Amino acid sequence: MPDFPASLYNRRTIRKYSTEPVHDQLLNDLLTAACRTSTTGNMQVYSIIVTRDAKMKIRLLPFHFNQKMVTEAPVVLTFCADFNRFSKWCRLRNAEPGYDNFLSFMTAAIDALLAAQTFCVAAEAKGLGICYLGTTTYMAQSIIEALGLPKGVVPVTTVTAGWPAEEPEQPDRLPLAAILHSETYRDYTEADIECYYAEKEARDDSRQFARENNKESLAQVFTDIRYTKADNVAFSKTLLQVLKDQGFMNH
Amino acid sequence: MPDFPASLYNRRTIRKYSTEPVHDQLLNDLLTAACRTSTTGNMQVYSIIVTRDAKMKIRLLPFHFNQKMVTEAPVVLTFCADFNRFSKWCRLRNAEPGYDNFLSFMTAAIDALLAAQTFCVAAEAKGLGICYLGTTTYMAQSIIEALGLPKGVVPVTTVTAGWPAEEPEQPDRLPLAAILHSETYRDYTEADIECYYAEKEARDDSRQFARENNKESLAQVFTDIRYTKADNVAFSKTLLQVLKDQGFMNH
Repeated sequence: MPDFPASLYNRRTIRKYSTEPVHDQLLNDLLTAACRTSTTGNMQVYSIIVTRDAKMKIRLLPFHFNQKMVTEAPVVLTFCADFNRFSKWCRLRNAEPGYDNFLSFMTAAIDALLAAQTFCVAAEAKGLGICYLGTTTYMAQSIIEALGLPKGVVPVTTVTAGWPAEEPEQPDRLPLAAILHSETYRDYTEADIECYYAEKEARDDSRQFARENNKESLAQVFTDIRYTKADNVAFSKTLLQVLKDQGFMNH
Repeated sequence: MPDFPASLYNRRTIRKYSTEPVHDQLLNDLLTAACRTSTTGNMQVYSIIVTRDAKMKIRLLPFHFNQKMVTEAPVVLTFCADFNRFSKWCRLRNAEPGYDNFLSFMTAAIDALLAAQTFCVAAEAKGLGICYLGTTTYMAQSIIEALGLPKGVVPVTTVTAGWPAEEPEQPDRLPLAAILHSETYRDYTEADIECYYAEKEARDDSRQFARENNKESLAQVFTDIRYTKADNVAFSKTLLQVLKDQGFMNH
């Protein structure tokens, strides 16, 4: 039986890259694999913007909250939901596209995200390191301007890639049982939560993280510092405005 | 240099499955790999509902427009955006969660989709066949009821998996150049569209598909039959209502 690459189990996010280049041929091989990913109705309603230019990386940097991977990685990829190309094709063929709505945005975002993840799996199997930047949905409007994205196109995630220059510890994960539900959703009791989060909270790095942030619990680091309600609400409003501006809320 | 599995290039969606079971151990191995996928801030804000029960498959079947993979596949997986578990943990730790908003839905949906795709890559590397069901976002409300998903949980995609009982042709893809943009988005001219869609439109199966549907072009099959504006608008409204009902639109 064929086996899948050990990198699927051993993976860790890589934020420091060596100066060794990622050659065009390798990048193209990885992107070719990514474009074999499942896509709704074989429409391929996504685009990938490849950033290699140092000036463009500097321009993108603040939109990714100055995370240094943006300028230090040899390759930055912005995966975009894209109904622009498909709709242009339809109009050229006397077919009236009806993709200026929220469902179509979700369809295209799903296409883009699945392709992104295939790229990452393929890259890691080749020994490259990758890091996803969650900032893309927060700062979509600025990224749209920087990359010149037309109506019908919305960036949904960004991946930095390069040869690893660090070997970080593998991060913890919740027990598989915490994520899985058999047949129907079994809502979590307090005892379940205690059980599933016990190992994570007992870790030295978790305790240190809370201490460094002057918080009494790891959870408070998330709610009060890393992913606050105020930020989430503000970014929600701007993201919904982006969907409207990019032509995905006409209903 | 390690190599990635040939299945990344050779893949095709599998809709017919043999009666050979997918054993729990293999499924758990694949799901364990999926849970190693990148996740925003290591929050793992997703859940996976495993459907193996024949009665539950029959219940889900109409919500996936009676696609026979739902009842014929040994395993059906519904990947859900889930801020319920994480928010429960926060509240137990004197931390006030602020994840009842659209941005948080997108964050959780991204987590769920990336994990889904790792599952699929791993499954295909092991020789299994998979099929994504796009119907999940259309019929989210009914799926929520069938699977008993509480507030904070929204299904975003469904994957059927099993041992292949067919060897379909590999579907076509647009040339890589159609998907990629270097540095900035280069919007498509009519000549670009003609060039990128020429091979797809010249295929016998594309022509046959248009003919069978009594359409003058392949594009019209998409706009008039497969993914119509009326359906997209209706599903957009119900999906936005689902996000509201599940507690992701409080801003």
